[in-house]
Amino acid sequence: MSETRIRLDMPAKLAAAMGRAACNACVGLDPVLTKLPAAIDRSDPIDAIRRFSLGVLEAVAPHVACLKVQSACYERYGPSGVAIIDEVMAAADLIDLPVILDAKRGDIGISAAHYAASVFDRAAAPDWVTVNAYLGVETLEPYLEHGGIFVLVRTSNPGSARFQGLRLDDGRTVAEAMADMVAELAANRRNEQGWSDVGAVVGATHPAEAESLRERMPGVILLVPGIGAQGGKVSDCAPLCGPDGYGAVLTASRSVIYPEGQSDDWMQAIAEAAARLADETGRVAGLR
Amino acid sequence: MSETRIRLDMPAKLAAAMGRAACNACVGLDPVLTKLPAAIDRSDPIDAIRRFSLGVLEAVAPHVACLKVQSACYERYGPSGVAIIDEVMAAADLIDLPVILDAKRGDIGISAAHYAASVFDRAAAPDWVTVNAYLGVETLEPYLEHGGIFVLVRTSNPGSARFQGLRLDDGRTVAEAMADMVAELAANRRNEQGWSDVGAVVGATHPAEAESLRERMPGVILLVPGIGAQGGKVSDCAPLCGPDGYGAVLTASRSVIYPEGQSDDWMQAIAEAAARLADETGRVAGLR
Repeated sequence: MSETRIRLDMPAKLAAAMGRAACNACVGLDPVLTKLPAAIDRSDPIDAIRRFSLGVLEAVAPHVACLKVQSACYERYGPSGVAIIDEVMAAADLIDLPVILDAKRGDIGISAAHYAASVFDRAAAPDWVTVNAYLGVETLEPYLEHGGIFVLVRTSNPGSARFQGLRLDDGRTVAEAMADMVAELAANRRNEQGWSDVGAVVGATHPAEAESLRERMPGVILLVPGIGAQGGKVSDCAPLCGPDGYGAVLTASRSVIYPEGQSDDWMQAIAEAAARLADETGRVAGLR
Repeated sequence: MSETRIRLDMPAKLAAAMGRAACNACVGLDPVLTKLPAAIDRSDPIDAIRRFSLGVLEAVAPHVACLKVQSACYERYGPSGVAIIDEVMAAADLIDLPVILDAKRGDIGISAAHYAASVFDRAAAPDWVTVNAYLGVETLEPYLEHGGIFVLVRTSNPGSARFQGLRLDDGRTVAEAMADMVAELAANRRNEQGWSDVGAVVGATHPAEAESLRERMPGVILLVPGIGAQGGKVSDCAPLCGPDGYGAVLTASRSVIYPEGQSDDWMQAIAEAAARLADETGRVAGLR
């Protein structure tokens, strides 16, 4: 096993951003061409995605603690799409806004090291990346030499229970077994505030399970998707946030970036939706 | 659930390639700069990776049935690295050699659809892609509108048992539960030869488990990594190949692309290693 190295204290940077924003809200940037505001010309799809992405960042940055970038939505446009991720991350870096790259990578040995390099070896790197540990804990270590990780534990999608909810012979679910692997890895990697650079993805769509997983993973920051359009409620997330409020990143995407009743000033509408999310999450986390 | 659509008969294309090559050998292309033959100038890393990749393809194409491209090794060089994957796939397409893109993607909903588009929506697309189904079966369907998939079931890495070997309360392992999900999805997607475009990754490093998984997944083609440098033996793979020999893709990487006692003519050395792998796998599969 490699020695513990924390190059940058990612949990502390995230906590500082939560403190500044007085909330633990995160906006998920997963642009889909057909859903962009009417005011954005779509004749050049990649340029439209680019302008929307930078506009969302500008609109939400004053309100939220964190930005989650869905890699797939950019990768689908090839190298020019991936270049937009770089541009968004560089813009976020200028204002010290933590970025989670939602890439859900998972591989072993030299390939894991290469994915880690492809994620973090760039001019403006993300602070955190989402990873899939079906292949085992050894898939995680290469990333930790560069930044923080959120391991998929209990995802928010409707069909996730089919596999993650299977029951082991010792009474744990598959998701709980994954949580225990995460907790073990995180135990030796906690900062002075008690939070680790090994985090976990736990969907807001299963609140009782999420609360139990929170208890199983002390010191593990939870990335909590599924709020808003997917049906998860911020009000259910209070037990996930920890005593200082820094233990969860409450993430909404569609409900913020495609707000209902969107006016012609789409950036203003997104800023207002982000402010609402910030207010709601800030109160639930005890940060305002 | 979406209706069954097989745009191209990927299992039939693979079987035809196996028939032509009289083997079910696959070479894994996962170039690492420091391991390239001395004859390749490394002063421009991306150009070195490019020349090596095209050289390996040219050297192995007359001998093997299939090429597996490890996406991580190219993604780590950013857009220029990804462009090499495109070039390799275009070259393989010209000679009708099936290509598996080893990208181990796994996401849900619109993101899965976007990953599927990013994998398959290109001038020369791969025939198959490796995918991770920790998030559930719904992660797999978007890919099947475009090409074939190999789902990670039991991987070849040393630490894989820690998670995949966990025992469920019904006696199955986690890997067996994943295999059953794969088998169920594959059951309605078999071609006239009986093989499906839903395949499974089962490592050669666990031969007894692999044989049992073969029986659990009728009609599912196995992508079998771990042969050679990782310690898996071709001779153990006979039970995996099915009665017609088309039921497994036996994959070696380092032992072929970095052959021992490599001479100055590195392409010749790789061609000879590929020919040996082809001969060995062809006999084991009953194809020669």
